[in-house]
Amino acid sequence: MKSIDVIEGELALCEAEIPSVGPNDILIKVKSTAINRADLMQKKGLYPPPPGASEILGLECSGIVDLVGEKVTSRKVGDEVCALLAGGGYAEYVACPEFQAIPKPTNLNWEEASSLPEVYATCWLNLFMEGKLSNNNKVLFHAGASGIGTAGIQLCNAFKCESFVTVGTKEKIQFCKNLGASEGAVRGEKMFDEVRDWVSDGFDLILDPVGANYFEENLKVLGLEGRLIIIGLMGGLESKINLGHLMMKRQRIIGSTIRARSEELKKIVMRDLHEKVWPFIESNEIQPIIHEVFSMSEVERAHQVMEDNENIGKIVLTLV
Amino acid sequence: MKSIDVIEGELALCEAEIPSVGPNDILIKVKSTAINRADLMQKKGLYPPPPGASEILGLECSGIVDLVGEKVTSRKVGDEVCALLAGGGYAEYVACPEFQAIPKPTNLNWEEASSLPEVYATCWLNLFMEGKLSNNNKVLFHAGASGIGTAGIQLCNAFKCESFVTVGTKEKIQFCKNLGASEGAVRGEKMFDEVRDWVSDGFDLILDPVGANYFEENLKVLGLEGRLIIIGLMGGLESKINLGHLMMKRQRIIGSTIRARSEELKKIVMRDLHEKVWPFIESNEIQPIIHEVFSMSEVERAHQVMEDNENIGKIVLTLV
Repeated sequence: MKSIDVIEGELALCEAEIPSVGPNDILIKVKSTAINRADLMQKKGLYPPPPGASEILGLECSGIVDLVGEKVTSRKVGDEVCALLAGGGYAEYVACPEFQAIPKPTNLNWEEASSLPEVYATCWLNLFMEGKLSNNNKVLFHAGASGIGTAGIQLCNAFKCESFVTVGTKEKIQFCKNLGASEGAVRGEKMFDEVRDWVSDGFDLILDPVGANYFEENLKVLGLEGRLIIIGLMGGLESKINLGHLMMKRQRIIGSTIRARSEELKKIVMRDLHEKVWPFIESNEIQPIIHEVFSMSEVERAHQVMEDNENIGKIVLTLV
Repeated sequence: MKSIDVIEGELALCEAEIPSVGPNDILIKVKSTAINRADLMQKKGLYPPPPGASEILGLECSGIVDLVGEKVTSRKVGDEVCALLAGGGYAEYVACPEFQAIPKPTNLNWEEASSLPEVYATCWLNLFMEGKLSNNNKVLFHAGASGIGTAGIQLCNAFKCESFVTVGTKEKIQFCKNLGASEGAVRGEKMFDEVRDWVSDGFDLILDPVGANYFEENLKVLGLEGRLIIIGLMGGLESKINLGHLMMKRQRIIGSTIRARSEELKKIVMRDLHEKVWPFIESNEIQPIIHEVFSMSEVERAHQVMEDNENIGKIVLTLV
């Protein structure tokens, strides 16, 4: 099969063997996959795949079930699915545990469907399971125009929460507001001055892919019993912390990743997405936000768009 | 009534009015109260009581219900209770919401009963409600010979978890081991070297009253999905943090206090204590650990014992 491999730090179209299928796995004929920031790090050798995962990049896909393992009960050959992957999506075929694939929303095309699993699984896990989001909570998304940000804003709409964003450009603020965010601020020295004015009592939850650069300010704008969920470290690892503030406000800081989590946990996340989020997608209340679709041969260019933070929403790689 | 007030930074026996009783409150004729580190801070003006709470020190007591508000349903005059208080325990009478008082364990005397509410409520809240402790978890208690430490060790025994302690002296290690702790280390430069060797995968939960001085080392000895719960700042407020470690290990840091929490939360904690912990006390599987009992007139000396970290377990003030 065709797959995209990392060769001396560059992405290249190669030939690989079709992955083998364990008793609880399905093999998917990939129609479309999508790019995540983790792929950029893996390409640079900074984010090795977890033990047992494919060495091929790609954390999500849409496609058609081509083969099922002997113990598989929930999927059958021919099913149209989208799947959360521990790796291997940038290829013609990928294998994954059956419960990490859920039905493709019937109203979406392959490209749209491939843009959903990673961002919605990440948001569901962090907003609702880790972050215990509840009605009328106020949520701050850094990188609000990213795939995760645009998914998060829409989940806040659907689940009656209020969302706020920080982004890289004014145009991205407008996009996020059109999507449902209440306020937005552009990255820069005075950004947190603006953010501080939006909610007098602080945020209930901050979903943060930045890390150190925003850490102390994040805790200052986090409210009583607020949750700061760190899902990335684009702004560095080392910070200071004031524990007095943390304790008196009873805040919690949660480090979170999804890729290395157990299959059991991913099964719960995907089941919840199918039951609780897919209905909003099928009714068009939540929409996939796609910045651009590239072909497999354009993968380097697709990565560059994310590297340059140009994208609003997801960058997709089609195999159709 | 007699009460102990702070006058120019010193504790003194004074006369005060018997507190008024709201519709959902009970008035308790206090038989015994106990000392908490928060009292020491409040005496120094560093920990003002939360809005609406008594200015008098004292976060727990045992005694007899003397009067009930018109809407009280769960307690009646003459009931023997122990109670978690937002303040006011160092006095002949104290008022509190009815659900913060639960029956005195029948096998304990007044002094023993007064030593339970604050440490068991704090441990229950932080180990089980915030910290999601589950079977076979490994828990590290700093200040393991304190009231909270000695309660925590026994709760770990009762709920099938393994406990480890750091303490101030070798004698305290032995005491904690006799109580059920697996290992202990004495405070000092090489303490964390010892701690690191006890559990290869790290601790599931650390209950920490120290704060900054232990913070970075705490995170290093905390395991995958481990919870660091900060309940005090005896070792300072300002620390550094490595967010990379936090994220890859999916750890969580939780700032926690109980005094300023809602009556609703305290009601749940006290109900749980009564239902799930009191049976262990009444069967003598969990025992009150009392360092020394002082009379009201000896309160300054009682505080000094805690200030000097001499105590193993609780320091009690009897009014009998």
